[in-house]
Amino acid sequence: MAIITLLSDFGLKDTYVAEMKAVILSINPNAVIVDLTHEIPKYDIRLGAFALASAAPYFPRNTVHLAVVDPSVGSKRKPIVVETKKNMYVGPDNGLLMLAAETEEVNEVFEITQKRFMRKDVSNTFHGRDLFSPVAAYLSKGVQAKEIGKPLKMYSKPSFSSASTEDGFVDCEVLHIDSFGNVITNVRREDLFAIGARLGSRLRLGNRRFTFLQTYSDVARRSFLGLIGSHGFFEIASNQHNAARLLHLKTGKKLRLSVTN
Amino acid sequence: MAIITLLSDFGLKDTYVAEMKAVILSINPNAVIVDLTHEIPKYDIRLGAFALASAAPYFPRNTVHLAVVDPSVGSKRKPIVVETKKNMYVGPDNGLLMLAAETEEVNEVFEITQKRFMRKDVSNTFHGRDLFSPVAAYLSKGVQAKEIGKPLKMYSKPSFSSASTEDGFVDCEVLHIDSFGNVITNVRREDLFAIGARLGSRLRLGNRRFTFLQTYSDVARRSFLGLIGSHGFFEIASNQHNAARLLHLKTGKKLRLSVTN
Amino acid sequence: MAIITLLSDFGLKDTYVAEMKAVILSINPNAVIVDLTHEIPKYDIRLGAFALASAAPYFPRNTVHLAVVDPSVGSKRKPIVVETKKNMYVGPDNGLLMLAAETEEVNEVFEITQKRFMRKDVSNTFHGRDLFSPVAAYLSKGVQAKEIGKPLKMYSKPSFSSASTEDGFVDCEVLHIDSFGNVITNVRREDLFAIGARLGSRLRLGNRRFTFLQTYSDVARRSFLGLIGSHGFFEIASNQHNAARLLHLKTGKKLRLSVTN
Repeated sequence: MAIITLLSDFGLKDTYVAEMKAVILSINPNAVIVDLTHEIPKYDIRLGAFALASAAPYFPRNTVHLAVVDPSVGSKRKPIVVETKKNMYVGPDNGLLMLAAETEEVNEVFEITQKRFMRKDVSNTFHGRDLFSPVAAYLSKGVQAKEIGKPLKMYSKPSFSSASTEDGFVDCEVLHIDSFGNVITNVRREDLFAIGARLGSRLRLGNRRFTFLQTYSDVARRSFLGLIGSHGFFEIASNQHNAARLLHLKTGKKLRLSVTN
Repeated sequence: MAIITLLSDFGLKDTYVAEMKAVILSINPNAVIVDLTHEIPKYDIRLGAFALASAAPYFPRNTVHLAVVDPSVGSKRKPIVVETKKNMYVGPDNGLLMLAAETEEVNEVFEITQKRFMRKDVSNTFHGRDLFSPVAAYLSKGVQAKEIGKPLKMYSKPSFSSASTEDGFVDCEVLHIDSFGNVITNVRREDLFAIGARLGSRLRLGNRRFTFLQTYSDVARRSFLGLIGSHGFFEIASNQHNAARLLHLKTGKKLRLSVTN
Repeated sequence: MAIITLLSDFGLKDTYVAEMKAVILSINPNAVIVDLTHEIPKYDIRLGAFALASAAPYFPRNTVHLAVVDPSVGSKRKPIVVETKKNMYVGPDNGLLMLAAETEEVNEVFEITQKRFMRKDVSNTFHGRDLFSPVAAYLSKGVQAKEIGKPLKMYSKPSFSSASTEDGFVDCEVLHIDSFGNVITNVRREDLFAIGARLGSRLRLGNRRFTFLQTYSDVARRSFLGLIGSHGFFEIASNQHNAARLLHLKTGKKLRLSVTN
């Protein structure tokens, strides 16, 4: 079986997504295509990265994840394949793929260069269909990433793609505020372990202190807590309350989280 | 072939539906997954039940229908499998599955108890992914419902799940008012037969009388009629007019329908 | 492999699209079904035709395209199969299929008449499910169009289904104004070749003159140009400007385009 997932900001009104599927099925008729979502707000790379990283862990090994949120299509930004310990990611070199890829440990990143794995006429405006889709289809048929391009040493690693841990603290960033006001960061369980935090540990953010727990109802109403959400990232929440508003936090805000015990 | 259908109130912006598909395909790579709809208004069990019951009859025998409109996820409401003469239904024990299941005649209802058919960490908030999806995938591979759980005698049968017939009348309920104002009830063709109604019979609702016919244009403009809609349920309509408004009927309203001939 | 594509104005809230898939899979369990879009504005045949013609070229040979934008369902408009040099199209005889079909060259058009390739009870309101879906499924299994119906000589060819070329000019029509204000016509590359236009040729529309080029940035900002868009049709654009507004053009407007070199 070869699963290819698709994520984009194309929406479902136009036939863009269908055209990508047409190209994929023309090359690999046995591909099983799963839409992650096509309702990412236009050009919102950070939210696209969060959605991709949230869904990818549930797919079996050797899935090919194709993601396109690509405000710089047609410019010099490179088309890439990211090979991780578990999967392949195909898309633009703008950070979109890296949050998910870093979770699985990156083997190597390749710039897509071989024209024989692209459509004949690559438009300037629709690399999703003309370049990324054929590449994903060939990867799903067993073509190796190294056949499709050349190793890329310098690639985009935006600040949100991984948190950085030091002795006793982690420098991180707000990835997303969900509709409940929960503040989702780019910190993973491993990052917390690395700084010595365990379930029950006391954490500090600015002058706020709260406990690392399992679920919202582990604290009194309106109290703060930290937990790993179902998306796999650390979030700061307030039981039945809007934590983002209380903490004046927005997407993209840089934070330092430390252990106090 | 193993078809699994999905219905939910999750929408398509988030990756929740994709995560369910990922779990299903991890267990049964050959499953053919069909989305019924994910645009059920949040927590609207009745409308979810109506949508499931409308679509299910068109699927082949042995389809597994997974439906999640689940306001009480994480509470004591039980996860169930309903085995009918034709299909399997997987979802919460809140009535969502019963309107469709009753149409096909229920063999047995099982409470899902066997942890080996669930994901390792079942979250409190997302049984769709962690519990219902793996169970549906195993059922689609031929696992028997009785291996997955234990027979459940007391399960939720909300008033809308079936109409009740007596000699000459049927006690029923308004399931849904569609965008034309047609009043769709939970009465099936069999229920009408059971009370002696045939095409052409005169029916009575309160002090209104109308005929059981085939299509809207069988009566004059603005006249009332009853018919079996394409969803398979009995509806009360007014040709080119809003029957619900004229009759002051709303979703959930209890009705008594009788034959007058 | 047998690909069936679906296009409609049904939206994704209701289960109509799922019911079509259920019918198809009941007949051909191996069909690979791809949604083109179901968000065509209600009854907008012209936009449906444009979407179908935009996406169809990317699918492999022998795809069956099922499209339903059908304001006259239940009336005397005929259900048809259009057999082209490359594919099959199934839908209502209202012009919806012809823009795509003409691009591939039409072999023959058939009126669907054989009841054994339809569902037992064909509703008056939902031919998509009861008539077009089973026909598409049988076609995807190798049944010939001529077995399903009888040749139809007189079928609907709306003005938008093809442009007409004369010596030095083409009479055409505005198919669609996209969100950038680009004016997409029903003129294909072949039509321009037929009137002697090549890349770099000067074209005239009313008292406006512009050049046939490859991409928007080939001209100065706010200058007009003509190009073949990624949908395969000729469009009149203004670099970073709203051409439709500047030219006072709307969908459906008839145009005469001529070569001036």
